[in-house]
Amino acid sequence: MLANAANNNNNNNNNITSTKDDLSSFVASHPAAEFEGFIRACVDEIIKLAVFQGTNRSSKVVEWHEPAELRQLFDFQLREQGESQDKLRELLRETIRFSVKTGHPYFINQLYSGVDPYALVGQWLTDALNPSVYTYEVAPLFTLMEEQVLAEMRRIVGFPNGGQGDGIFCPGGSIANGYAISCARYRHSPESKKNGLFNAKPLIIFTSEDAHYSVEKLAMFMGFGSDHVRKIATNEVGKMRLSDLEKQVKLCLENGWQPLMVSATAGTTVLGAFDDLAGISEVCKKYNMWMHVDAAWGGGALMSKKYRHLLNGIERADSVTWNPHKLLAASQQCSTFLTRHQQVLAQCHSTNATYLFQKDKFYDTSFDTGDKHIQCGRRADVFKFWFMWKAKGTQGLEAHVEKVFRMAEFFTAKVRERPGFELVLESPECTNISFWYVPPGLREMERNREFYDRLHKVAPKVKEGMIKKGSMMITYQPLRQLPNFFRLVLQNSCLEESDMVYFLDEIESLAQNL
Amino acid sequence: MLANAANNNNNNNNNITSTKDDLSSFVASHPAAEFEGFIRACVDEIIKLAVFQGTNRSSKVVEWHEPAELRQLFDFQLREQGESQDKLRELLRETIRFSVKTGHPYFINQLYSGVDPYALVGQWLTDALNPSVYTYEVAPLFTLMEEQVLAEMRRIVGFPNGGQGDGIFCPGGSIANGYAISCARYRHSPESKKNGLFNAKPLIIFTSEDAHYSVEKLAMFMGFGSDHVRKIATNEVGKMRLSDLEKQVKLCLENGWQPLMVSATAGTTVLGAFDDLAGISEVCKKYNMWMHVDAAWGGGALMSKKYRHLLNGIERADSVTWNPHKLLAASQQCSTFLTRHQQVLAQCHSTNATYLFQKDKFYDTSFDTGDKHIQCGRRADVFKFWFMWKAKGTQGLEAHVEKVFRMAEFFTAKVRERPGFELVLESPECTNISFWYVPPGLREMERNREFYDRLHKVAPKVKEGMIKKGSMMITYQPLRQLPNFFRLVLQNSCLEESDMVYFLDEIESLAQNL
Repeated sequence: MLANAANNNNNNNNNITSTKDDLSSFVASHPAAEFEGFIRACVDEIIKLAVFQGTNRSSKVVEWHEPAELRQLFDFQLREQGESQDKLRELLRETIRFSVKTGHPYFINQLYSGVDPYALVGQWLTDALNPSVYTYEVAPLFTLMEEQVLAEMRRIVGFPNGGQGDGIFCPGGSIANGYAISCARYRHSPESKKNGLFNAKPLIIFTSEDAHYSVEKLAMFMGFGSDHVRKIATNEVGKMRLSDLEKQVKLCLENGWQPLMVSATAGTTVLGAFDDLAGISEVCKKYNMWMHVDAAWGGGALMSKKYRHLLNGIERADSVTWNPHKLLAASQQCSTFLTRHQQVLAQCHSTNATYLFQKDKFYDTSFDTGDKHIQCGRRADVFKFWFMWKAKGTQGLEAHVEKVFRMAEFFTAKVRERPGFELVLESPECTNISFWYVPPGLREMERNREFYDRLHKVAPKVKEGMIKKGSMMITYQPLRQLPNFFRLVLQNSCLEESDMVYFLDEIESLAQNL
Repeated sequence: MLANAANNNNNNNNNITSTKDDLSSFVASHPAAEFEGFIRACVDEIIKLAVFQGTNRSSKVVEWHEPAELRQLFDFQLREQGESQDKLRELLRETIRFSVKTGHPYFINQLYSGVDPYALVGQWLTDALNPSVYTYEVAPLFTLMEEQVLAEMRRIVGFPNGGQGDGIFCPGGSIANGYAISCARYRHSPESKKNGLFNAKPLIIFTSEDAHYSVEKLAMFMGFGSDHVRKIATNEVGKMRLSDLEKQVKLCLENGWQPLMVSATAGTTVLGAFDDLAGISEVCKKYNMWMHVDAAWGGGALMSKKYRHLLNGIERADSVTWNPHKLLAASQQCSTFLTRHQQVLAQCHSTNATYLFQKDKFYDTSFDTGDKHIQCGRRADVFKFWFMWKAKGTQGLEAHVEKVFRMAEFFTAKVRERPGFELVLESPECTNISFWYVPPGLREMERNREFYDRLHKVAPKVKEGMIKKGSMMITYQPLRQLPNFFRLVLQNSCLEESDMVYFLDEIESLAQNL
């Protein structure tokens, strides 16, 4: 009898199919046991190629291939027969080769980057233990760890009584924002849990036009429809205009609709703007609306005594989205939803399934936290972050945050002074910095429609050049009437001033023939 | 200047805070680089303690402690100062010690278990590369890999034209079921994306009383309300009663409500029953309802020529939830939502955020698949499963499935013949087997109220005993009027006949004083 019936290797090169009869030995007790050498060899290559070599400044960020070409180069095909371990190791190496090195210092393309060694070790242990966090019984340690981390985060947010309330880990900030909508709806009309939104007065969600798209997306998913998400205009630095917010709220009331909540943003996706949270909290109070703060991106600044003023007023929020996988550089995913209200998550989402949340267990079942979630099985995203936090201390996280802000300020100063570069915002507040590069051939032009049309095409061309060269990855986008501009995003505290200069040099060099 | 500003170790025992000036060296280029020794030492312990020793039959499945006690034993506290690497390694070891060994052969408690060595290596590589799968640009290989795996799964489901349609990876089966509701709603009324459910005719979702709680939970989250989820009675073997389904549909129509969809189940959570999919598809056709099949648990049987008949009719579904992390033993999470409709996921969920899904990129942006999802950042859950599939081949996955079904049949036969054990279903269809154990002291009793009250208390007491002893973990639950019974769940193909006997012996032994 095979120790591992699942293995069907006909062309394997070691003893995968050996017969084991001694069931008391660990070899037979575990399908992986015969594979210790294979596992170790794979891990060794992962550490060497993906963790270190792939993130070396002298390596490419990406080896680019078009989809059709990549399909030729890589053997995606799933077949009847399994592959040999040699072939599998080759596939691992090729997976690394053809993947974008998001841990590379020159990957400044998204709101995540870097590979924190403690977070990585934390993820690897989590994978090995493969827990699902819904009952204390199957995840005792991770249950208490979630409680600890979420309480500490609420304390840092500044909720009353040293951080009262509740919180959960979510599969990303988008779904965390959905939880905010869900809690706001429940607080406004608990009967909606039973009745749904059919025949209800329309409930209106307010957020800024620069907010993350997830507010609208989740509102659509949750039965509100995009028409009931009101996008409030932002001012010249990307912050929600309070005058427009109040105007829109009044308009809703006049229409017989119900203002439900404001989703403010602390660190917008593109410009990195922080909404005026204290001001928004006044409007929410006046009209009895739930105040949510999407601090998925900017929340990390709360760790810094120097920068936490950017989020002044967040302590008045009803709920907060905060993703440690962004500014704090935990690995993906590590997203939290925090609320000052103790009971709402459980009241709002529970269904009391008797096959998972049995009440006649021998321990205190208030530690079975799974019924607060819309997920059933759920990964322990807490451990990597807790382990990082333990390793670095709160001071270490603060030093990390302050280092990336310092680099962002250095970069901004360089952009400001360097010919051809122009900032979108003169003084960005967060560590994402938006700017244009005007190639020499365009600099003398009048700033008319033709100029902006041509400038609009610069960033996509430069982006194409850098990806094909593999020298760096930075994103670009238009915003409202503004033509395409670059957006540098910093979260990796190993970046230095010389890297900032490299980014500018590289863009200049890639644009020289435009 | 510190190479890693984030590190604030004051009491570290190696060169974490050493100064590095050479930016071209990989040491300075990467915060993890100085930590290679630490990473390797940690991985070595993870492999030794968590992957092997922790899953050895001679080890405990769990070292049990009450929450208050565990808080004393383990240092959860987050402090200003970071910890030394020695302390961190100690914390890793203690995390392993105090965690439930879900990969242990005697963890048969939930719908996941085991540690597949290929899946583990796949997860570890995914973590090292830390991708987010939303644009081809940042995840080229994983984008094409998702396409390949999802197409192959649709082909196996049996959708027309060799597997037409679309699919996505989801953070768990609950949310996958939510996608089914979302797609059904959109197909019925595309305007709901804009208008929401306010003022709409109530839309009704039908599912069986034995279906997973996520159908109701997601319906509540999505604005339907629990009242608009109609739970159809099941028959004596746990299958949805088609006569009751049709009766309920007609009742809805009489009330002026709109029957929207049926969520059938292929492998119910408790009894493992497979609904009559072909029959349900007829009802759906007749009343123009979306047909969803929640095959999160039972979907794995599709890999087996011997057992796929259990899901006959699934090929007629509009959509399917299928979690390879359950019966196919991929690590968590690995959940898919599959639909025969090519466009609905994108139409239904897209918001076209210009800062992520730029249309003026230099490559074919139809490969930027993120806008189909309600998540923005999203882990590459595909790789571990693809890698397992490559390693074992389709035949290997089939052998795995058939092995666990064979063990389930062996176990069922043993329960049937052994004194004191009684099956809840005489012939379970899936690899979850529900049964009572009647201790000797109860066997002579009349089967009256007192008997059932006493029997109801047996499983919780036995469960308490096994957890405190650490000898195995099996769940129990009541069902409708039935008193608490045990539910064995098999997904681990390394389990043998002798293990099945061990489970029965152990329950008998733990119950001997009851």
